[in-house]
Amino acid sequence: MSDTHFSIKAIATIRTPFRKRFGTPRQPGVTPSATGVISFHKGYESVDLVRGLEDFSHIWLTFIFDRVRDQGWRPLVRPPRMGGNAKVGVLASRSPYRPNHLGLSLVKLESVVVEGGKAKVTVSGVDLTDDTPIVDIRPYLPYAESIPEAEGGWAGEAPKSNEVTINSEVEDAWDEVPEAVQKLVLEILRADPAPAYHTDGKGYAVELEGYHWQWSRVGTTLEIRGIQKLDAS
Amino acid sequence: MSDTHFSIKAIATIRTPFRKRFGTPRQPGVTPSATGVISFHKGYESVDLVRGLEDFSHIWLTFIFDRVRDQGWRPLVRPPRMGGNAKVGVLASRSPYRPNHLGLSLVKLESVVVEGGKAKVTVSGVDLTDDTPIVDIRPYLPYAESIPEAEGGWAGEAPKSNEVTINSEVEDAWDEVPEAVQKLVLEILRADPAPAYHTDGKGYAVELEGYHWQWSRVGTTLEIRGIQKLDAS
Repeated sequence: MSDTHFSIKAIATIRTPFRKRFGTPRQPGVTPSATGVISFHKGYESVDLVRGLEDFSHIWLTFIFDRVRDQGWRPLVRPPRMGGNAKVGVLASRSPYRPNHLGLSLVKLESVVVEGGKAKVTVSGVDLTDDTPIVDIRPYLPYAESIPEAEGGWAGEAPKSNEVTINSEVEDAWDEVPEAVQKLVLEILRADPAPAYHTDGKGYAVELEGYHWQWSRVGTTLEIRGIQKLDAS
Repeated sequence: MSDTHFSIKAIATIRTPFRKRFGTPRQPGVTPSATGVISFHKGYESVDLVRGLEDFSHIWLTFIFDRVRDQGWRPLVRPPRMGGNAKVGVLASRSPYRPNHLGLSLVKLESVVVEGGKAKVTVSGVDLTDDTPIVDIRPYLPYAESIPEAEGGWAGEAPKSNEVTINSEVEDAWDEVPEAVQKLVLEILRADPAPAYHTDGKGYAVELEGYHWQWSRVGTTLEIRGIQKLDAS
């Protein structure tokens, strides 16, 4: 039998707007405004490694779900898309609580730039928390990997999009938020970060792009009820 | 900074028809007749792990390119599709000579069966060598991962298909080969396992499904010139 244990190293780290798991999109592509910047670690900084990458519009990131690694893995998980109650096998899911905690994410390639002899790769549509270790990057091959007719089981259709409203009490605060941040917040809330079984009216909060956001959901509408600018630190 | 070193374990092994790297398809999907059977290692054998997987038509295999691991990785590689001469960055390629030697392959799910309480997953369209260690399995999500309009750089189009002929001297031997094996051999040769810069007329050989196959290429035609049945061992 071949080897069964392997040691792998992060080749890069990605900076994203998502400091915590809650509020981080569950799938790539649902938040096209969310950008991530990949910087390479020592030993992998040469621009040679990414030569030609700019010819591809989409790339795969293989990463480590490092925020949950110390919690181990579970044979069965409850995908939020299934309402958070039904269980499926972890290998039939994209849950982070998987053996080896390897994540896979398809993102849009925005740019490859060289700064001081080192490559920096900017991507969008990210669903990774800030500072996630990247262990591989590879091009997306549309001729082999685009299968529109594939059957997607519990994830066969795109997630439903929620309506998002601004409570009148925070309308002034909302108007002062930069447009790019507004766009990102709307994308995140439309995908609803809370589990599907959550209670109507329950309040949720997240820190994002220098603001503390509060909202609650009634039916399929999420209402933003709190916007506090955080001190830059 | 977060951790940068991770140890991962094979959760399963895949049996495929491909004993050697040469002759193993370079991309999944080009040899739909090539099937692989995945058996799980101790600790990952519970059928719970794959519950619901059968609802998906396609799955991702994350694996280790264990045949080249002792050769390390290279910053620049020469994709066979580019004629084998032009260099691109390893992260702009699907080369096995990559940091961490992690492979990613999209395959068609044929069946999930339970034998003696253990799951066995059969897939087709495999491009993995026999006995490759699998470190993760996850469902393909068509709504997020099928992007037909993506730009594919050097791999923007499907590989060209070669014509395959049978030399008259081996026609009788060919007729005795089981149809399923004929089909697989034709698929492999149509994709031409040899590098694009190879010399017209040069002979190639591979062992596959109990036969020793020899062929050579002239222009875009590959001619099968030798078929020897191997002793079962």
